[in-house]
Amino acid sequence: MTDAASRAVDREAPLGVFDSGLGGLTVVRALREALPGEDIVYLGDTARVPYGTKGAATVIRYALACAKHLVARGVKSLVIACNTVSAVAPERLRIELDIPVLAVIEPGARAAVEATRTGRIGVLATAGTIASGAYPRAMAQCSTRVDCIGHAAPLLVPLAEEGWTEGEVPELVVRRYIEPLANARVDVVLLGCTHYPLLRPVIEKAVRERIGQHVTVVDSAVATAADVRAFILDRNLDRRSPTGTGSVRLLATDATRSFREVATRFLGAPFGDVELVDL
Amino acid sequence: MTDAASRAVDREAPLGVFDSGLGGLTVVRALREALPGEDIVYLGDTARVPYGTKGAATVIRYALACAKHLVARGVKSLVIACNTVSAVAPERLRIELDIPVLAVIEPGARAAVEATRTGRIGVLATAGTIASGAYPRAMAQCSTRVDCIGHAAPLLVPLAEEGWTEGEVPELVVRRYIEPLANARVDVVLLGCTHYPLLRPVIEKAVRERIGQHVTVVDSAVATAADVRAFILDRNLDRRSPTGTGSVRLLATDATRSFREVATRFLGAPFGDVELVDL
Repeated sequence: MTDAASRAVDREAPLGVFDSGLGGLTVVRALREALPGEDIVYLGDTARVPYGTKGAATVIRYALACAKHLVARGVKSLVIACNTVSAVAPERLRIELDIPVLAVIEPGARAAVEATRTGRIGVLATAGTIASGAYPRAMAQCSTRVDCIGHAAPLLVPLAEEGWTEGEVPELVVRRYIEPLANARVDVVLLGCTHYPLLRPVIEKAVRERIGQHVTVVDSAVATAADVRAFILDRNLDRRSPTGTGSVRLLATDATRSFREVATRFLGAPFGDVELVDL
Repeated sequence: MTDAASRAVDREAPLGVFDSGLGGLTVVRALREALPGEDIVYLGDTARVPYGTKGAATVIRYALACAKHLVARGVKSLVIACNTVSAVAPERLRIELDIPVLAVIEPGARAAVEATRTGRIGVLATAGTIASGAYPRAMAQCSTRVDCIGHAAPLLVPLAEEGWTEGEVPELVVRRYIEPLANARVDVVLLGCTHYPLLRPVIEKAVRERIGQHVTVVDSAVATAADVRAFILDRNLDRRSPTGTGSVRLLATDATRSFREVATRFLGAPFGDVELVDL
């Protein structure tokens, strides 16, 4: 990564972010808060979403196609905003690409390890991410003294996409998913899926009520954005004199009827035209 | 279809059933009740599930691959147990294949039209199926005197897959989805997704309580199985002297960790080995 970063890089170029779908827009949202002056190009592979049900070889192939498309558009750095891709593809992308590649799992795992005092960390994520073992693996690289208790929470993705982010239904669903983490007496709950930040208030409430006031909820999107910020500033890759807030450009491989509604919900802001691309 | 059916067909051959994933196993379950002596080969394209988010051209391409694989295995008739495929591909499959092709939408739509007295029919289905307009189109071909009120119910698929099919969460979710159908005063509620039969008791309870005792819940899997039975018997395609219950053979393009658990839930019975196939 040092080699790539030490080349002549256009600091004014946008950051490239990609995900299997629209969930990664929560990472864009966090990036806009962490690095408000940066332009961002986001690619959602909505035609092939979800990746979580596919094998590693297929996920790597799709990730390479997304990454190369963004590189061809001149991005200065790449952020993988997809847990499935982050679990299997970063090394391969770093080998194949000439620009720095950052991913979502490692920053979230590290932030969780830094936040825990008891060493008992709970992770909520999709079934695919939990089954991959990516979070316990990433945590083990930060500390040998943590226990990672993962729990698949498949209903949280459709709840976030439906916009059912407050009230009785999400509260009951979240309480049910929190139960095994409460029994394991974790002191950190890591949100290991890009959709979950939309349910953060409900999750925090359930965590406080069911486990305790002392428990920290770590949002992997926010942790990733903080890491990207440190990386960009450290290597003088930030725009020299950004004027106002940077732009967000949305690319997608397919646009369904609810695309704009769901994308706005995840990004937390309106956006311009969506460009359809064929990978 | 008559041409195909009038050829020399091996009556002892199995029925072929396919779906984008495992939901279509509820159709297999209904088929086993309707035609207990028949052998069934089921193909779930689990590597590419879901189809509902993909464009029509892609869905047709995938459907042809599934269908041809089953034809190569010598099935005597093909049942499309996938609403997305049934909405766009049956005609193309009928043109390309030499065997009869039956699908899920038309039988469900017809059963709903036959059941309604007021002409007001509600449909619960995935966002993709509702957006496709396939059910109102199919109902319009049966009767010009029905109103079809469709409502997307995206949480029901993960509820069924999680096995959360009774208790507070599914009851609240279903009640919320039933609301617009209650306001429209439908007298039939059609379950337009292969996953929903698992939630049928909860849906029936909510329908009785919120809309009324007189409302009929039509299960498109059951309606399809009844149609397949009539078709098979009518054309003397049923096995001559089946001994006991027919076999079910499961093929899939990918097998995740939860495959067996979810498949058993949908089929309502245990099953043997799963054969992985590459399309």
